[in-house]
Amino acid sequence: MRFDIITVLPALLESPFAHSILQRAQKKGIAEIVVHNLRDYSTSKQKSVDDYQYGGGSGMVMSIEPFAACIEKLKAEREYDEIIFMSPDGVTLNQSTANELSIKKNIIILCGHYKGIDQRIRDIFVTREISVGDYVLSGGELPAAIVVDAVVRLIPGVLNDETSALSDSFQGELLDAPVYTRPADWRGHKVPDVLLSGHEAKVNEWRHEQALERTRLRRPDLLE
Amino acid sequence: MRFDIITVLPALLESPFAHSILQRAQKKGIAEIVVHNLRDYSTSKQKSVDDYQYGGGSGMVMSIEPFAACIEKLKAEREYDEIIFMSPDGVTLNQSTANELSIKKNIIILCGHYKGIDQRIRDIFVTREISVGDYVLSGGELPAAIVVDAVVRLIPGVLNDETSALSDSFQGELLDAPVYTRPADWRGHKVPDVLLSGHEAKVNEWRHEQALERTRLRRPDLLE
Repeated sequence: MRFDIITVLPALLESPFAHSILQRAQKKGIAEIVVHNLRDYSTSKQKSVDDYQYGGGSGMVMSIEPFAACIEKLKAEREYDEIIFMSPDGVTLNQSTANELSIKKNIIILCGHYKGIDQRIRDIFVTREISVGDYVLSGGELPAAIVVDAVVRLIPGVLNDETSALSDSFQGELLDAPVYTRPADWRGHKVPDVLLSGHEAKVNEWRHEQALERTRLRRPDLLE
Repeated sequence: MRFDIITVLPALLESPFAHSILQRAQKKGIAEIVVHNLRDYSTSKQKSVDDYQYGGGSGMVMSIEPFAACIEKLKAEREYDEIIFMSPDGVTLNQSTANELSIKKNIIILCGHYKGIDQRIRDIFVTREISVGDYVLSGGELPAAIVVDAVVRLIPGVLNDETSALSDSFQGELLDAPVYTRPADWRGHKVPDVLLSGHEAKVNEWRHEQALERTRLRRPDLLE
């Protein structure tokens, strides 16, 4: 699977893609993540990528030309399944979208900044607009990293234990039960007895009850 | 405002905090972001920070002791308003939580990994559990960066134009209208005439209609 990420801040994405699961997936050759500097596609002398917005108002708008040049170069090299624009007014990312994207082959992600991007980029090139949540961020870079992380970890062979992703929150219909590890007693705060009992059926029953209770309290919407 | 982030992957967070608005906020002395390596607080020879979970099951659980040692050291140095645990079963982050956090002074953020963290850390230390959305990620690092970015950009003086944050999506009740910049005609794809008209009242009317229409189509829940 290949991700091409187009951004004015390629350096911002260096460390998230160089560690942990994303590093491992790239080393194993399962995922390729290529970050493109949008400024390299600007034809202006100052390498500018934005301009004042038509109709007036504060905030710069990212121009169509550098994005178009980069997207068209990439599309000439290979077929893309999706061109995603990270935007607070996109469809909110959830686990089922992540699952769906994890079986794609080539994906371009556009990162916006400032007041937004020229609407024609969205109309002409973008196949899908995704938001990571109802909050405003400085740019689309962290959201792009979120999408890549959520998707790549689902590809078989990326996680050490193939069953791990399946037992994640949101893959089932309940939140996880509380977990505990050593010491059994930390300054008087004890691990629930049942977990120390060695009685597997009782442990499973306790975990199911706890998961149900936590879901009821925190996310009743998941039970509907 | 100060953020202390406790993580097993401090290097993953290097580039997001070294660029753009977060870099600017730190240079201006408005925000201080300190990343702590959880392993530095492990007392085991192997600097381990996790262990098998009680009751059995796949996936390691992060131990209470290194987190407790780091949190207690920080709390001895200053008062903290919040100790936030980034967790998929936390309360979903939204703009009003970001606004609320932006007036706090000192915040600790704990990043989880693996199967989760010992429940006692959550029970004893954590004041607030936040999720960035209904999807599973490799760890709490990117979510922590999301929270810091969403919050820091709201602090007066961080953005160049103080009005910018106020005109963001989600601060009002509507999504943004489409935006356009030069050229007015790109390969036959034209900017709407009204934006070129110079007629301010008509521009505002068009923007309001477009914002309303986009919100109706994409996020009817915001209109309820």
